[in-house]
Amino acid sequence: MASNRFGCLFCVTTWGESHGKAIGAVIDGCPAGVEISLAEIHQELALRSPGNSPFTSPRKESDQVEILSGLFEGKTTGAPICLLIANHDINSKPYEETKHLLRPGHANYTYIEKYAHYDYRGGARASARETAARVAAGAIAKKILASYGIEVVAYIKQIGKIVADPLLKEMKELKQATCASPVRCPDRAAAQKIEQLLNQVKAEGDSVGGVVEFLASNLPVGLGDPVYEKLEARLAYALMSLPATKGFEMGNGFAAAQQYGSTNNDLFILEKQKVKTKTNFAGGTLGGISNGMPLIGRTAFKPTSTIEKMQPTLSLHHEKEQLTLPAGSRHDPCVAIRAVAVVEAMVALVIVDALLMNRCAKL
Amino acid sequence: MASNRFGCLFCVTTWGESHGKAIGAVIDGCPAGVEISLAEIHQELALRSPGNSPFTSPRKESDQVEILSGLFEGKTTGAPICLLIANHDINSKPYEETKHLLRPGHANYTYIEKYAHYDYRGGARASARETAARVAAGAIAKKILASYGIEVVAYIKQIGKIVADPLLKEMKELKQATCASPVRCPDRAAAQKIEQLLNQVKAEGDSVGGVVEFLASNLPVGLGDPVYEKLEARLAYALMSLPATKGFEMGNGFAAAQQYGSTNNDLFILEKQKVKTKTNFAGGTLGGISNGMPLIGRTAFKPTSTIEKMQPTLSLHHEKEQLTLPAGSRHDPCVAIRAVAVVEAMVALVIVDALLMNRCAKL
Amino acid sequence: MASNRFGCLFCVTTWGESHGKAIGAVIDGCPAGVEISLAEIHQELALRSPGNSPFTSPRKESDQVEILSGLFEGKTTGAPICLLIANHDINSKPYEETKHLLRPGHANYTYIEKYAHYDYRGGARASARETAARVAAGAIAKKILASYGIEVVAYIKQIGKIVADPLLKEMKELKQATCASPVRCPDRAAAQKIEQLLNQVKAEGDSVGGVVEFLASNLPVGLGDPVYEKLEARLAYALMSLPATKGFEMGNGFAAAQQYGSTNNDLFILEKQKVKTKTNFAGGTLGGISNGMPLIGRTAFKPTSTIEKMQPTLSLHHEKEQLTLPAGSRHDPCVAIRAVAVVEAMVALVIVDALLMNRCAKL
Amino acid sequence: MASNRFGCLFCVTTWGESHGKAIGAVIDGCPAGVEISLAEIHQELALRSPGNSPFTSPRKESDQVEILSGLFEGKTTGAPICLLIANHDINSKPYEETKHLLRPGHANYTYIEKYAHYDYRGGARASARETAARVAAGAIAKKILASYGIEVVAYIKQIGKIVADPLLKEMKELKQATCASPVRCPDRAAAQKIEQLLNQVKAEGDSVGGVVEFLASNLPVGLGDPVYEKLEARLAYALMSLPATKGFEMGNGFAAAQQYGSTNNDLFILEKQKVKTKTNFAGGTLGGISNGMPLIGRTAFKPTSTIEKMQPTLSLHHEKEQLTLPAGSRHDPCVAIRAVAVVEAMVALVIVDALLMNRCAKL
Repeated sequence: MASNRFGCLFCVTTWGESHGKAIGAVIDGCPAGVEISLAEIHQELALRSPGNSPFTSPRKESDQVEILSGLFEGKTTGAPICLLIANHDINSKPYEETKHLLRPGHANYTYIEKYAHYDYRGGARASARETAARVAAGAIAKKILASYGIEVVAYIKQIGKIVADPLLKEMKELKQATCASPVRCPDRAAAQKIEQLLNQVKAEGDSVGGVVEFLASNLPVGLGDPVYEKLEARLAYALMSLPATKGFEMGNGFAAAQQYGSTNNDLFILEKQKVKTKTNFAGGTLGGISNGMPLIGRTAFKPTSTIEKMQPTLSLHHEKEQLTLPAGSRHDPCVAIRAVAVVEAMVALVIVDALLMNRCAKL
Repeated sequence: MASNRFGCLFCVTTWGESHGKAIGAVIDGCPAGVEISLAEIHQELALRSPGNSPFTSPRKESDQVEILSGLFEGKTTGAPICLLIANHDINSKPYEETKHLLRPGHANYTYIEKYAHYDYRGGARASARETAARVAAGAIAKKILASYGIEVVAYIKQIGKIVADPLLKEMKELKQATCASPVRCPDRAAAQKIEQLLNQVKAEGDSVGGVVEFLASNLPVGLGDPVYEKLEARLAYALMSLPATKGFEMGNGFAAAQQYGSTNNDLFILEKQKVKTKTNFAGGTLGGISNGMPLIGRTAFKPTSTIEKMQPTLSLHHEKEQLTLPAGSRHDPCVAIRAVAVVEAMVALVIVDALLMNRCAKL
Repeated sequence: MASNRFGCLFCVTTWGESHGKAIGAVIDGCPAGVEISLAEIHQELALRSPGNSPFTSPRKESDQVEILSGLFEGKTTGAPICLLIANHDINSKPYEETKHLLRPGHANYTYIEKYAHYDYRGGARASARETAARVAAGAIAKKILASYGIEVVAYIKQIGKIVADPLLKEMKELKQATCASPVRCPDRAAAQKIEQLLNQVKAEGDSVGGVVEFLASNLPVGLGDPVYEKLEARLAYALMSLPATKGFEMGNGFAAAQQYGSTNNDLFILEKQKVKTKTNFAGGTLGGISNGMPLIGRTAFKPTSTIEKMQPTLSLHHEKEQLTLPAGSRHDPCVAIRAVAVVEAMVALVIVDALLMNRCAKL
Repeated sequence: MASNRFGCLFCVTTWGESHGKAIGAVIDGCPAGVEISLAEIHQELALRSPGNSPFTSPRKESDQVEILSGLFEGKTTGAPICLLIANHDINSKPYEETKHLLRPGHANYTYIEKYAHYDYRGGARASARETAARVAAGAIAKKILASYGIEVVAYIKQIGKIVADPLLKEMKELKQATCASPVRCPDRAAAQKIEQLLNQVKAEGDSVGGVVEFLASNLPVGLGDPVYEKLEARLAYALMSLPATKGFEMGNGFAAAQQYGSTNNDLFILEKQKVKTKTNFAGGTLGGISNGMPLIGRTAFKPTSTIEKMQPTLSLHHEKEQLTLPAGSRHDPCVAIRAVAVVEAMVALVIVDALLMNRCAKL
């Protein structure tokens, strides 16, 4: 249990249901002395918010964060930071009407079996609404990373069969181009095709899957702890804990299965007196520890399970008769788009935890 | 820190270096009353051992386990179980000779940067030798799973570009066919092609990557804990903590990115009065909780980093001159093959932990 | 770090400062299906509240709890429960004026040294205000205990040199007599003497120490986990984490040091076909595991550090000149009295965690 | 569960039973670069060993440690350190003969109820034999402390009604005087009385309780983490996890209950330009954080439960007939004496963990 917390030293516990009073996070273990402003947190949340792009759910989530503790005169004190985001624009009626039905691709069947007592309103704890709390916590993690010069960016790498090729080398450009794109894809040509696809998918009342890529630059060599707390293991855990994720890979990932050692080994070279590797198939780690190369990886999202189509299903009480789940509404045509901000947050949380852990590696 | 342990309730801490006196595991939290025999543990270890197949390293690892504690009259007592496997057939000389060189694809550079003081002999703690301890612990986890009727099997799904299609439906057949194959691939046709590929790769002094698939049957509905301890998140963490892994996916995995909600949602059906899904694209979980369908997923391994070819590299002290790492020897042409047993063990460890956790889900 | 959480399976993270917006707790790991009402939580909080007794601080802490998550239709769902208690009646001015002074017996010196950045208002995170969140969480723990028939009660055993002798055998009577006493002492004669002492102490602007005793009945045999999670170790940890505690003992405690084995061993007897012990010097555990006898122990509190007397001290910046801390006000003459409710809560939290852990002891 | 480990960052898992093959500890999280020699570990173990004093059990425990991992060229590498101590001089026969009897003061009743399957030989996991592994781990912790200039010493403060008054100011003298005394009491006059008492107790086949005091000097200000990981809470937890402990106190401890704020507050003073307190009633912490004064506290031990007298008891199967436990043998007349080394080790483990945690307190 205690399954609602993430991180060992920089430890985030999130709480709250989509149709409850509020959601939030408590960060236990944030070092003292970190400057935090609400504006910075809201900026991160804005990227995740629906309604900020024509390609996300029309639900309005204003996502105003309140910092209830842990901050004094604009800086953290080492005490736990409680972040609260009130829920608004809630309409539980549609869920009331279908509460007796198993929702394909959703968690209501497994929750009712696991817990017996179940909150059916809007996915409740299983809703992606919970990820807003992750983004808020991630905003604070990023402030710590910034003090180390570490930057993290995530963006859409693929939607359906359209694969983007960012081509941009500088982190800042990548970040700007991602924020500027309504589908969070920094490759303009791909972004346009994706917009067309999403319009089509929306028109059909359907949804589509996608892949989010993340990149982190300027990590010191040495982050990540063998053998079970390898940086890639923590990243995989972090990203596979997101709703709708189906896969994770580092560096060349599954493509490595088709490679040979002689072509896949990243050879060491000196660059401006620093040890680098000629290629970065590994994605920035060796033996689970950051090697000074950019951290790169990606995670796959399935298509949104809520679709505007009728679906045959069963009742929660398992009677034989086949029933029909009515068409849903107000969903995202592709969850990966809003997940971009969440992936960025989770990667930041993983790195900040590894940074703190690394302070204890040597006498 | 405390990064050498795995699991929350069934908690395994492994220890030991490849060229040290021994390796082992301490299992803290194994319930009392589990019958364990050395024979069962050795059977699991045999699958991982090199030398048991012409396609693995010629190193001889006899892997005799000694149970030092936690067992009384053949059954666990609830006390910690210490498993010890002595190291034999160690030759540290080659490592002595190249200890000043960065080894491409290996962890010696990152370890020396992280820890300053480094054991260069045979990969030490970063060696895949550590995974023998995981297999031994996994053998005990499997005994608990067996008492619930849960079975786990893993096998080679892909080597290089050769993709297997097991086609076998029964867990037992799958297991038998896997054990019978020297390349741990239950699809005979694919296995033959893989053997040819491996012979060729060996002849060239090279190595190749691969994908291991796992399957677990008969899980009760309800395993896995939202939101961060989702079953798929724990599996991803478990498998991405293995040396040389580059990717993880559940169900249809990365392929889900190309799917539509209308085709990707697994529809609920009744089968022998039980709720099942018509398809299993999800891979056995919904919202991170097991849904009664088989758990299925896979993990990608890069080609073995040690190859029998010279490789340009740098010295550990970062001088400018380019040096050359001599050709290695005694390596596996494909780490995925021996990893099959380890993947199986890790999946078993994840499930047993989730099983115990689930005892606390309800009042 | 992550030092603001308590419990392994029933895991409580508290947050908030005495002069911040609110304090609260997040309970992660509460089983689904526990009926909870605000009234029950408020009843527990009332016992801790100042102003409810002439012998506690005149500060008004209304302590209205809001349940922000984890509850649906009056029952827990297995999701994290966020409890929020807004802060009222805050006057930070006195702290403003003395923020440059080391406060004897208080934590401002150690906090500023540890964290560099410090919230000086009212003790902030070091304030006993935090314990209100523990009491709220404990109220939920007690609901689970009640479903097992387990009851917990705490009361004043000693104030200054006045030692109480409860003499009441039934838990209910003990609880009632404790609640009825303004000094939370169920022994009427002792309570009267304590009231006199406290009036005198208040008149002198001084404070006095005390001892709180706890009693828990009806625990099943088997709670507590060897070797580090012994029930008494967890209780000691729980109670010594309270502000102002200086000691902890189980059963006959320090008096055992003067005993002989032949007089101190509790002999086993059969009582109504159940195994009991003739005496209970052990205090309800053997080898760290509950033995079916009542759990009994106590914890010592130092006198309140804030007194209405001037005290010589130093400045936070360590200049040589001796300064004077002005007389404080609005303090409790004896912190042990309000701590009674908190001790009860902490004991309940320890037991509920041990209960859940015990579900995994056997196959 | 996972109840056999201690510490968060410097994490020690002990394993092994008194009559099993071996006992040991795995230290996960020891920083790299710590110089360790077997001689230093053996020196610590010698203090705990029976047979080294006429006042301890005549059992011979040679306690030869083997370091199986984590060390390379005499220094730690950051990898887990496995320490193994083989068991010798085992005679399980007496336990065989009385395995059907409840042993007063011992844990066999609670273990059998908790685990159903029970190792009855010599207390098994409940035996104080386990504490040898703590001492070995503590020896490594002390090496880290030494690099910070921190010293820890423990000694007998009281046996029966004889209370010692060490009077020695220097840590080194205290340590030497303690080691030189066969009853581990640095106060010679008290030590002589204790020896007389123990001879008498032994002659009567009885046992007696005692109190061990610990002292740690030279801690930096800032160790300990609010609110649940207060230094005194961790110490209480550490010491109350030892077999036979009944109480714990810091500074003036239970005596504080009789004090007034005006007399109990430790006033701040400057000493050689450093902030100190005039008195040290607190015992070295304020708000759970070390304040630069010596850490001082004590823990009470009950008399050894095994005595050389017949005791009435019940059978494990709870039949009505009263049975008799035969007189035990080979026990310590007072467990506190050998516990001195263990208390020292546990205090060292607590401090080293707090030291590592403190590295993450500030940005």
